[in-house]
Amino acid sequence: MTETMPPTGLRFLKSALTEDNAFQTTEEAVAWLHATGKERKLLVNQIPFSELGEWSSAEGSGDLVHKSGKFFRIEGIRASTDLGPLPEWDQPIINQPEIGILGIIAREFDGVLHLLMKANMEPGNPFGVQLANAVQATRSNYTQVHQGARPPYLEYFLERNHSRVLVDQLQWEQGSAFLRKRNRNIVVEVTEDVPVLDGFRWMTLGQVKKLLTYPNLVSMDTRTVIACMSLCQPRGADQASASLSPFGVDILASFNSTHAMLSDDHLGSWLTDLKCRHQLTLQHIGLDRITGWDRDGHQISEQNGRFFRVIAVDVQSDSREVVHWSQPLIASVEEGLIAFLATKIDDVLHVLVQARVEPGSADTVTVGPTIQCALGYHSRSGGGEHAPFFDLVQDAAPETIRYSAVQSEEGGRFYRVENEYRVVEIENGYELSLPPNYTWVTLHQLQELLRYGLVSVEARSLLSCLPLT
Amino acid sequence: MTETMPPTGLRFLKSALTEDNAFQTTEEAVAWLHATGKERKLLVNQIPFSELGEWSSAEGSGDLVHKSGKFFRIEGIRASTDLGPLPEWDQPIINQPEIGILGIIAREFDGVLHLLMKANMEPGNPFGVQLANAVQATRSNYTQVHQGARPPYLEYFLERNHSRVLVDQLQWEQGSAFLRKRNRNIVVEVTEDVPVLDGFRWMTLGQVKKLLTYPNLVSMDTRTVIACMSLCQPRGADQASASLSPFGVDILASFNSTHAMLSDDHLGSWLTDLKCRHQLTLQHIGLDRITGWDRDGHQISEQNGRFFRVIAVDVQSDSREVVHWSQPLIASVEEGLIAFLATKIDDVLHVLVQARVEPGSADTVTVGPTIQCALGYHSRSGGGEHAPFFDLVQDAAPETIRYSAVQSEEGGRFYRVENEYRVVEIENGYELSLPPNYTWVTLHQLQELLRYGLVSVEARSLLSCLPLT
Repeated sequence: MTETMPPTGLRFLKSALTEDNAFQTTEEAVAWLHATGKERKLLVNQIPFSELGEWSSAEGSGDLVHKSGKFFRIEGIRASTDLGPLPEWDQPIINQPEIGILGIIAREFDGVLHLLMKANMEPGNPFGVQLANAVQATRSNYTQVHQGARPPYLEYFLERNHSRVLVDQLQWEQGSAFLRKRNRNIVVEVTEDVPVLDGFRWMTLGQVKKLLTYPNLVSMDTRTVIACMSLCQPRGADQASASLSPFGVDILASFNSTHAMLSDDHLGSWLTDLKCRHQLTLQHIGLDRITGWDRDGHQISEQNGRFFRVIAVDVQSDSREVVHWSQPLIASVEEGLIAFLATKIDDVLHVLVQARVEPGSADTVTVGPTIQCALGYHSRSGGGEHAPFFDLVQDAAPETIRYSAVQSEEGGRFYRVENEYRVVEIENGYELSLPPNYTWVTLHQLQELLRYGLVSVEARSLLSCLPLT
Repeated sequence: MTETMPPTGLRFLKSALTEDNAFQTTEEAVAWLHATGKERKLLVNQIPFSELGEWSSAEGSGDLVHKSGKFFRIEGIRASTDLGPLPEWDQPIINQPEIGILGIIAREFDGVLHLLMKANMEPGNPFGVQLANAVQATRSNYTQVHQGARPPYLEYFLERNHSRVLVDQLQWEQGSAFLRKRNRNIVVEVTEDVPVLDGFRWMTLGQVKKLLTYPNLVSMDTRTVIACMSLCQPRGADQASASLSPFGVDILASFNSTHAMLSDDHLGSWLTDLKCRHQLTLQHIGLDRITGWDRDGHQISEQNGRFFRVIAVDVQSDSREVVHWSQPLIASVEEGLIAFLATKIDDVLHVLVQARVEPGSADTVTVGPTIQCALGYHSRSGGGEHAPFFDLVQDAAPETIRYSAVQSEEGGRFYRVENEYRVVEIENGYELSLPPNYTWVTLHQLQELLRYGLVSVEARSLLSCLPLT
């Protein structure tokens, strides 16, 4: 099968460029999501920590833990680093060491890859239902360690006799809120019939990308998996051409160009140098001992209203099978801004990336977007310092904004955490004077860094939103 | 300068294929090393731990530490995993968290890159002197935290106005003996005159590779940097042709072929799957509490004679400036075997790699050579179990052995730790039945994995030895 197929990147591109779908139009998909959201609801109420039921404060540390020892913990850490505005700070962080599966099932219909998508409810979703990938499973789920049914469709990822892998990468979650948490982002293709259960639909990648122009309709899990669907072609493959993008250049050329401001070797050296030059040390001190944060019966919050808040919620589903649980969640303090500056250099689209230190990241530095003003010490609206280029993005003229939509973070851990994702194009961006931890990269270079797990989830999420046409 | 140059991979290849050198022949280089070894000596004597001077056992843990808190520590850990022959074991491990610099300076003479190499002495070197890269510096060295002169040539790596980076990668040390220790492997090119100090010589890469056919002449640090000098060409570059290798195929084609038994995507998926499937947990328990090891006044050794021994040495140089110090070192229990099985698949050379769990590695699994019987629980000579394919390599017919030489591990931490490095070619290797954690990769694929820090130092070292002609 492999031999006669076009390269996977081309097949993703073809799907990304079409909204034609024999099962439903994009408008019908939107209507379906809205209808599902009205039909099925999660009742979510904020509760005091004392009513968390199976969750409690661990003896000695005060960390929030589940009585089973499973799921996740919210711990107190002290971070120190020599890159960024703060040399040392304390914060709560989610410790969930298991690798989860974020899985998309793909199947070709009429020569175009379609993705099996789910109308999914999470307690932290802003409107309840979001378009999500078919499978989100923790290791406990798929190894059946604890009770509960095996999630549907998981077998396509665990047993490969009926599926073929198109994408399979380990990717990191938010380093500002998760302690070294990664998920397996995986796309499998099936060639046989797949039963389409209630709440699932086949959609083209172009339809999903269209839904990404709406606020909060597509889950973060889906955005990160989509970002792994590289449009880059393998070495030596014929180069295809896409239609003209909003940037006035062939976007596929930017995903495949070998012309870059910085050669691949120099880009690697830039990252190596920053990893060597800067340090990050973490110390687990326990939620009881973090300084600069206030804890009352209902929330743990930073004293200057920055970072995020830890709250507790009670969740009840009103579907036929009554489900009821409570859990801690991370809530934001305001809407954030996650953005790329983009520019054309020799007709190849480049985006400006920032090497960031994040407490929960795997290495000293991670490649992030130009602006990542979310869940951190910078307030978007508040006065005071901002990271470089913030004003350039925040105050961008409307005609230079190539993408803007509010998207929410994963609703199983984040309570209505919404960020504006934005792409701003500037002229002659290479003339900007850059701090040492910033550089322009092509989409090809970004996708290659991403493939090796070096790109933050915020930058991946933003890449998934990048308009192609 | 960059624009008009041939691709770096081609320039490395040209240097790798020539031993012509206006400064000295390869024979003269060997003679120079031997002469230097006679002229300059380190007097190394094993001493009891009690005479270690500035080193002592830390209160509570028994870990071996320097009184300054600097340099490195030898700690006791407990490791557990579900991949490999042992589910749980204790061992000493070197904890040296700093990123060091392993630097090579390159300059073109007569159109061929030459490398500035050093006749270097380390206490653990089998014959005292080895050919080494110009600079080995710890972070303390280059930030001048502690006393001592800044090593010569370091400025070419720290200040780049007179040099240009050809290679710059973070690479991991032995995961069996170091706790997450990595070094910056860096090659810079200079175009101006470089003063050649006493004890340094310009050599082509071909000359260094020739010296790798001798036992113990080239340092491990140099081998890992050389392994980073990729012979792969960038996308779209004209493909050059090398002469016929001992494998009967154009070796450059194997470094550049896009034909592989496993596609790059499937190779990535293979590694992702193993990282998800297997677990490694480490616990610091202290040297005083490790089980299965005996400690007397002179050594810490495993009760069944496996792994390695920790010893203490006193070191004195007999050069004009009298230098005298003592330190712990890791000694081996026997000569090990580090080997690739190689085979041609559609005329492209593939090597068999093994995903291994090592206690000090950065991730659950690391890509290692086919056989890595060194510093671990497998004894090469002893009876009992061996890893898969051991007999195939150990008992290989002489005419199928494409490379064999004894090489020693880094002499600043390892006391005369010698391993045979071997490459064995087999016919129709793809017919071998492979355990799930083994796969055939092309040299191109191995080099790409290496570029992102996913390949063990043993496999890198062996790759540096691979004969091209």
